[in-house]
Amino acid sequence: MALAVSPLAVPLPELPPIAGVRLGAAEAGIRYKGRTDVVMVELAAGTTVAGVFTSNKCPGAPVDWCRAALPSGKARALVVNAGNANVFTGRAGANAAKATAAAASDLVGCPQKQVYLASTGVIGEVLPHERLTAALPALHARLSEDAWEDAARGIMTTDTFPKAATRTALIGDATVRITGIAKGSGMIAPDMATMLCFVFTDAKIPAAALQAMLRKGTDGSFNCTTVDSDTSTSDTVLLFATGQAKHPRVPAEGGRMLADFARQLNDLLLDLALQVIRDGEGAQKLVRIDVTGAVSGKSAKRVAMAIANSPLVKTAIAGEDANWGRIVMAVGKAGEPADRDSISVGIGGTWMARDGGVVPGYDEAPVVAHMKGSEIEIAVDLGLGRGKATAWTCDLTHGYIDINGSYRS
Amino acid sequence: MALAVSPLAVPLPELPPIAGVRLGAAEAGIRYKGRTDVVMVELAAGTTVAGVFTSNKCPGAPVDWCRAALPSGKARALVVNAGNANVFTGRAGANAAKATAAAASDLVGCPQKQVYLASTGVIGEVLPHERLTAALPALHARLSEDAWEDAARGIMTTDTFPKAATRTALIGDATVRITGIAKGSGMIAPDMATMLCFVFTDAKIPAAALQAMLRKGTDGSFNCTTVDSDTSTSDTVLLFATGQAKHPRVPAEGGRMLADFARQLNDLLLDLALQVIRDGEGAQKLVRIDVTGAVSGKSAKRVAMAIANSPLVKTAIAGEDANWGRIVMAVGKAGEPADRDSISVGIGGTWMARDGGVVPGYDEAPVVAHMKGSEIEIAVDLGLGRGKATAWTCDLTHGYIDINGSYRS
Repeated sequence: MALAVSPLAVPLPELPPIAGVRLGAAEAGIRYKGRTDVVMVELAAGTTVAGVFTSNKCPGAPVDWCRAALPSGKARALVVNAGNANVFTGRAGANAAKATAAAASDLVGCPQKQVYLASTGVIGEVLPHERLTAALPALHARLSEDAWEDAARGIMTTDTFPKAATRTALIGDATVRITGIAKGSGMIAPDMATMLCFVFTDAKIPAAALQAMLRKGTDGSFNCTTVDSDTSTSDTVLLFATGQAKHPRVPAEGGRMLADFARQLNDLLLDLALQVIRDGEGAQKLVRIDVTGAVSGKSAKRVAMAIANSPLVKTAIAGEDANWGRIVMAVGKAGEPADRDSISVGIGGTWMARDGGVVPGYDEAPVVAHMKGSEIEIAVDLGLGRGKATAWTCDLTHGYIDINGSYRS
Repeated sequence: MALAVSPLAVPLPELPPIAGVRLGAAEAGIRYKGRTDVVMVELAAGTTVAGVFTSNKCPGAPVDWCRAALPSGKARALVVNAGNANVFTGRAGANAAKATAAAASDLVGCPQKQVYLASTGVIGEVLPHERLTAALPALHARLSEDAWEDAARGIMTTDTFPKAATRTALIGDATVRITGIAKGSGMIAPDMATMLCFVFTDAKIPAAALQAMLRKGTDGSFNCTTVDSDTSTSDTVLLFATGQAKHPRVPAEGGRMLADFARQLNDLLLDLALQVIRDGEGAQKLVRIDVTGAVSGKSAKRVAMAIANSPLVKTAIAGEDANWGRIVMAVGKAGEPADRDSISVGIGGTWMARDGGVVPGYDEAPVVAHMKGSEIEIAVDLGLGRGKATAWTCDLTHGYIDINGSYRS
C-alpha cells in the first residue's frame, strides 16, 4: 500500500557536501522489496562523535553497541538498516550487531568500536545480518559526498517524506556546516515509531564538547516532542564532527567559541524534530504548546507534555474544537503545582479562560479560524512563577488508528 | 444521535431496597432534553460516609464541597446532576454548589454539610443551579426505596448502559447489603470521561473504618483501570452506610469483623470499575494486564498501567494483532526496574516471548483465536522479584476518535 504524503510535509532542502563525509544507500532486501534499506556513511580519520539514546529500559542491540562504543569519542563509520529493529532478539541480536560492525570495520579499515549502528523496524525478529553484510562491499565502493537524499530515504520505514536540515555556523571567523537527517513515525503496520537522527559537521570539536552540546540540543528539541507518548526502544541521535574545516582550535570544554555552533545545532535539531512530528502517524495538524508561569522550567515542561500527550486534547484538535476544558484537565492531571483559580488558557493568541473561569464575551471567531489551520498554538499560563517550556505534538486522528490497528503481516 | 450500546455491556442486576436509602431521578433540563438529569438520595439519620476524589489539581466545585464536608463522616443526602460538570467555573461554581446543598438540606432537614454533591458533563459553563433546585421539591416528595435503575440512568452522560452492582456480606452472623451505581465514559461530544460511583449499605460502620475500606477498595479497582490516561476533574466515589441493619457493633477501627464486608465491597467496586471500562469510549475489547515478577507491587502497577495506557498496545489490540513487541516497549518506557533479558510476555495463556527473545516455534493459533475475542488477557513476568499487579483497560478504536473529535455544540 502506497501512503499519501503527510499534509504537513516540508520539501527536502539543498544538502551540500561536508568534507570528511561520504555516504550511500543500497537494497539489502531485509524486509522491504524494491527500495533501499541500508545506509552506510564513512567518516574521515579523526572524526569525533556524540550520541544520545532512548531512555527505554528495553533498548535494541544497536543501542547497546553504540553506548559501548561512545566513550572513545571516535567514529569512522555508521551503518543503518530499516525494516528490522533488532530489538528483543537476545544473544542473536548482539551477534548480528557485532557481525555488521565487523564487516564495516574491514571495509573502512578501523577498529570495530569506531563503527556506529542503528536499526529500525519490526521488533522481536532476528536481524538477517548476512543480507546486510553482503550488501556492504558494493555499497562501500560507491560512497559519495553527494548522496544525502539517498541516505535520508534509505533510513525511512513508514515515513511519508525524507527528513533533512542543514545550517552553517561560525567558529572564530571560519564557517562550518552542520547537516542532519532523521526518520520518524510513518505508516502501514509499523511496529514502533522509532526516531533516528544523524548529524554531521566538518567542524573539529572535541568529543566531550560535542556530547555536552548534543545533550542540551536534544533536550530542547526531540525531548520536547511527542506523537503518542510511546518511547521507542531504538531512539538514537548521533552527531559526528569530521574535523576537516579550518578554524581556531576548540578547547575540550567547548565554551564561548562554540556559541554560534551550539545555536545553529539547536536550531537544526529542532527543525528535524518538528519534521518527525509533521510525519507523526495520522497527523493533520502540528501543535505547539507554550506553558508559562510555572514554578520551574521542569514543572512547565511536565505540564506541557501532559497536554501534548492527552488523547482528549489531541482528538479535540483533530476535530477543530477549541476545547479549553480538556486543556485545563490535562494541566491538572500533570501532578505539578497548579492553582485552578490562577490558570489562563489561550488558543491562537486569544485568551479564552483566565483566573479560573471563561473570559466573558471573548471573541470566538479568530479561535475557530485558528483551529481550522494546520498549525495550532496553545498557550497556558499557570500564574505561579517564571518557569516556562514548549512542547510540540500532532493531533490524534483516524489515521493513527488505521496505521497502528492493522495487522503486521 | 442515539448511540449503539457497547458490545461489552452487561445487564443491570436486580437491585433490592437498602434500609435507610430512598432515591429518585427527575428532569431538570440542565443540558439534555427528554431524559432525567438530576438524582437525589435521602439517607437515614445516623448514616456514615466515606469518599475518595480525583487527584486532578483542577477539581470541580462539587469535589471541593464534598472534601470540605467529609471530615464530619455524616451524610443525609446526595444530589447529582448530569450534563454540566461545574468545573472551572470560579466563584459562580462554588455558589451553585452551595445553593444546591442548601436546597437539599431544607427538604431533608439537615445541616448543609451533610449534603453531598456531584456533577458531570461539560466543563467551564456555569451550572444553572436554579433549574436544579427548582426540580428538587417534587423529586424529594416522591423518593422511593425502589428507584435504583432510575438513579443509575439519571447520572449517565454519554454512557451507553446504566451501571450497578450489588452484594451481600456477613457482619458477625448478620447479612448486610451493599449496592453501588456508577457512570463513566460515553459518547457524542462529551467533554471529559468523568467517573462517578455511589455505594450504599445498610451496615452500621464508623466513618473511619468506612473510609479505610473505601480507600483500599478503590486502589484495587478504579485506580487500576484506564480508558485513555486522562484523569477527570470530577472523579468521585462515595460510600454511605445507613446503619439500619442489626448486627454486632463494629469498632471505630473496623478490623476482623469487617473482613467479609471488605471482601464484598472490593468485589463490588471492581465490578463497577470494569463496567465503566466496558463502556469506555469506542471500546470493543476489555483488556486485563497481569504483571508479575516486579521488584515491588508499586513497580508492578506502574508497569501494568504503562502497558494499559500505551496507544500502540491499545491500537494493536483493536487490530487483533498479538504484537508483543509493543508490550515490551511499554514495559521499557515505564521507567521501572526491568531487565530486557529476563522479561516474559504471554497473551491468552500462551507465552510468546521469554528470556529476552521470542519463544521458538510457539503455537500462534490459540493466540490468534484469543485476540479475536472480546476479553483479552496479557501477562508479563519481569523475572526480578515477587511484586505483582493487575490493570484493566479497553482497546483504542476509531470510535474513540469519532466520539472525542466531534465538535461540542
